[in-house]
Amino acid sequence: MNLDVYVVTDRSLAAGRPLLWVVEESLAGGAGVIQLREKDISTREFVELALRLKEITSRYGARLIINDRVDVALAVGADGVHLGQEDMPLQTARKILGPVLIGVSVATVAEAAAAAAGGADYLGVSAVFSTPTKKVATTVGLEGLRAIRKAVNLPLVAIGGINRDNAAEVVRAGADGLAVVSAVMAAASPRLAVAELLEQVKTARAKRRGEG
Amino acid sequence: MNLDVYVVTDRSLAAGRPLLWVVEESLAGGAGVIQLREKDISTREFVELALRLKEITSRYGARLIINDRVDVALAVGADGVHLGQEDMPLQTARKILGPVLIGVSVATVAEAAAAAAGGADYLGVSAVFSTPTKKVATTVGLEGLRAIRKAVNLPLVAIGGINRDNAAEVVRAGADGLAVVSAVMAAASPRLAVAELLEQVKTARAKRRGEG
Repeated sequence: MNLDVYVVTDRSLAAGRPLLWVVEESLAGGAGVIQLREKDISTREFVELALRLKEITSRYGARLIINDRVDVALAVGADGVHLGQEDMPLQTARKILGPVLIGVSVATVAEAAAAAAGGADYLGVSAVFSTPTKKVATTVGLEGLRAIRKAVNLPLVAIGGINRDNAAEVVRAGADGLAVVSAVMAAASPRLAVAELLEQVKTARAKRRGEG
Repeated sequence: MNLDVYVVTDRSLAAGRPLLWVVEESLAGGAGVIQLREKDISTREFVELALRLKEITSRYGARLIINDRVDVALAVGADGVHLGQEDMPLQTARKILGPVLIGVSVATVAEAAAAAAGGADYLGVSAVFSTPTKKVATTVGLEGLRAIRKAVNLPLVAIGGINRDNAAEVVRAGADGLAVVSAVMAAASPRLAVAELLEQVKTARAKRRGEG
């Protein structure tokens, strides 16, 4: 799975542009994962939208991850689900889903260790920085990310306030990939925004390896 | 399955009383089905609440049906799900769920025929009358209920504005059971409210059979 640039959808940030367009642009720019996050639509609309995204992500060889809704993931044959701490418990989701990808949002070493022990496939470390799109009481920060990196061996996707200016330091702190919402959803060119982030990730990873 | 009195939950109508109490009172009064309907809680809270209800309904030999959320139904091993026309398509839900109960909300003969052809186990005919808890543009009415009764052989649960005063005529129009929200949720004694409705259903059904 290519987690380098992991795009989380938010239609409210797309400035009126169709979500399918933003998603396809992101994939053209090199995004390896699209996470579909929806809150205020009916299950039927969610399923229909997810089916459309599945078609596009498959065409680009990318993965489609559904946020929270295990039923929608099953309905469309998504590659996986992403679970927050307020979503379905990991073990329950695993029992229902079988061997698809399950990512879990974690903010602390304890949550990361629990998710790793529970069989998560990757972790979303959230929120690394504060972000205009989601009010967060506390942030994990680069220190927190480093601590989680030391504690678990799973792939880590960092999320929260990540953009091209801080991308390199986030990778150096141990992230395997960068999850972005507004930095891509609201970008004039989502394709360029993803391509730039991808470049940052690759350069920073090469440097990290060189130092390691 | 005993569909005679089918209680649909709505915590906002319970006047501050714990939902678990209202549910247990309903079961003590003779409700055969509890349909858990929740909109504004997290998936984790929904699962936890459904687990508690499953324990109570099992204890009373009643069925637990989850509204809309196939994932929650799978997570708690519920007896089934109820799908509105804006929820997951019936065939998709059947594929995911296997042989659990699936009820479908219908308002017209066409919707009823489609749900029957698609393999629904029972139908919720909605809304028979207008109701204070849910704004409806048009109601099915007793005429509509009779038309659906003639068109399909599945068990029919009538819902929408049903109370002890109109219960008998709804059964005479062809309903196998009465689904109620406010008539039980908001009742001073949910137990008595269910018992009274149950009595109405049984009497009306005996009369219908005598006439039939």
